[in-house]
Amino acid sequence: MPTVDLTTLPTRAPAEYHKSTTLRELKKLRQELIGLQDRLYAQNRHSVLVLLQGMDASGKDGLIRRVFSGINPQGVQVYSFKEPTEQELAHDFLWRVHQQTPARGMMQVFNRSHYEDVLITRVNGLVTADEARRRFTAINAFEKLLQQAGTTILKVYLHVSEEEQQERLQERLTDPAKRWKYEAGDAHKASQWRRYTAVYEDVFAHCSPATCPWHIVPADQNWYKAYLVARLLRDALVKINPQYPG
Amino acid sequence: MPTVDLTTLPTRAPAEYHKSTTLRELKKLRQELIGLQDRLYAQNRHSVLVLLQGMDASGKDGLIRRVFSGINPQGVQVYSFKEPTEQELAHDFLWRVHQQTPARGMMQVFNRSHYEDVLITRVNGLVTADEARRRFTAINAFEKLLQQAGTTILKVYLHVSEEEQQERLQERLTDPAKRWKYEAGDAHKASQWRRYTAVYEDVFAHCSPATCPWHIVPADQNWYKAYLVARLLRDALVKINPQYPG
Repeated sequence: MPTVDLTTLPTRAPAEYHKSTTLRELKKLRQELIGLQDRLYAQNRHSVLVLLQGMDASGKDGLIRRVFSGINPQGVQVYSFKEPTEQELAHDFLWRVHQQTPARGMMQVFNRSHYEDVLITRVNGLVTADEARRRFTAINAFEKLLQQAGTTILKVYLHVSEEEQQERLQERLTDPAKRWKYEAGDAHKASQWRRYTAVYEDVFAHCSPATCPWHIVPADQNWYKAYLVARLLRDALVKINPQYPG
Repeated sequence: MPTVDLTTLPTRAPAEYHKSTTLRELKKLRQELIGLQDRLYAQNRHSVLVLLQGMDASGKDGLIRRVFSGINPQGVQVYSFKEPTEQELAHDFLWRVHQQTPARGMMQVFNRSHYEDVLITRVNGLVTADEARRRFTAINAFEKLLQQAGTTILKVYLHVSEEEQQERLQERLTDPAKRWKYEAGDAHKASQWRRYTAVYEDVFAHCSPATCPWHIVPADQNWYKAYLVARLLRDALVKINPQYPG
């Protein structure tokens, strides 16, 4: 698989995109998604897994709200992976993840995922490069298993610039509506920017087969990333082409 | 991996084994197992998965009773895989299996397993040879994942002769204590003996890497197979060498 240099990839929309027109497009896409999801659920054959990763403050929560609001929640589930519990740590790293994979007919969003087990764990020195290699192999096999069972996987990396991240983390300290998101570790993690970039690049190099690639989405502007992810999801659903049972 | 011809493999103990002495050995092995399991549980680092497969009436239930009775049930769990539920069928074939894998410190027995998904399903024409190949690959990756997380896997095939199976199935019709086990499908399945043999041989050819081999255990005599499985388990635990935390 090709190597990726994140520093060369854009974090903002190309100049031809404008906020207002893009937001109108997003609205249309959401209408399409509502219809496609309804057919996916009714057909009860395929499933979709949208997996979101990104540095702190890359806007995962906001993206989920912007893309999935309005879709029938009966057919969509969001699961946010937190620090593993004792019971989860007593099993292999995919144990808790496998339990959350979508049933036929469902759309599942992973807010963070099994990739944390080769990212934060590596930055914190809990997982060696060798162990990460073994986990990459396990992850690829796991995702293939899901695909073979009828799950379309959309892996999205929200790519923010270091400057934008800093600004957002700062905002968390001053905006009462965002303050609850601030964790004591945020400042420290920001200083680990380069190490996070390196381990993400390693993930993209090893876990992005042609059949299950990562989509690296410019994420400095909320309207643009929501539009792009909605479009990716719409395209994936169109490819599935779900039909109401005859 | 080498091919296996089940018809050439013994279903009975070698002549030098005698029932009474072997049962005394089994008793000793069980005492060893009790001590080893206690240390495995106390150390809370490794786990053991004993996976039992075999034709109908090969004696899986009896084997579990003979080998594991006396071991502290707090540290041993038995899970019997039945026909999958609707919810289980809505996921990939390893989804329900992964949930039952042992936590650190635990011993887990699988009475049947994910291998049914490449055995009975194939005999019944639900899974093609191509799909079975893909599942073999997924199974090998799955078992490797468990091993890398500290699980020792012991895969045991209880090898009965067709004659012994017929006799036992007949017994189920006449013995009130066994009658409940008789299923309407038994007679039919017995006639599928050759097809089951072929799909089992395919499993042994594809899912028996040196790091996670199948143990094909002669199973016409209950005392001999219990002794052999207890010995395999004892040897596996001795290799783990669990220690009380210091």
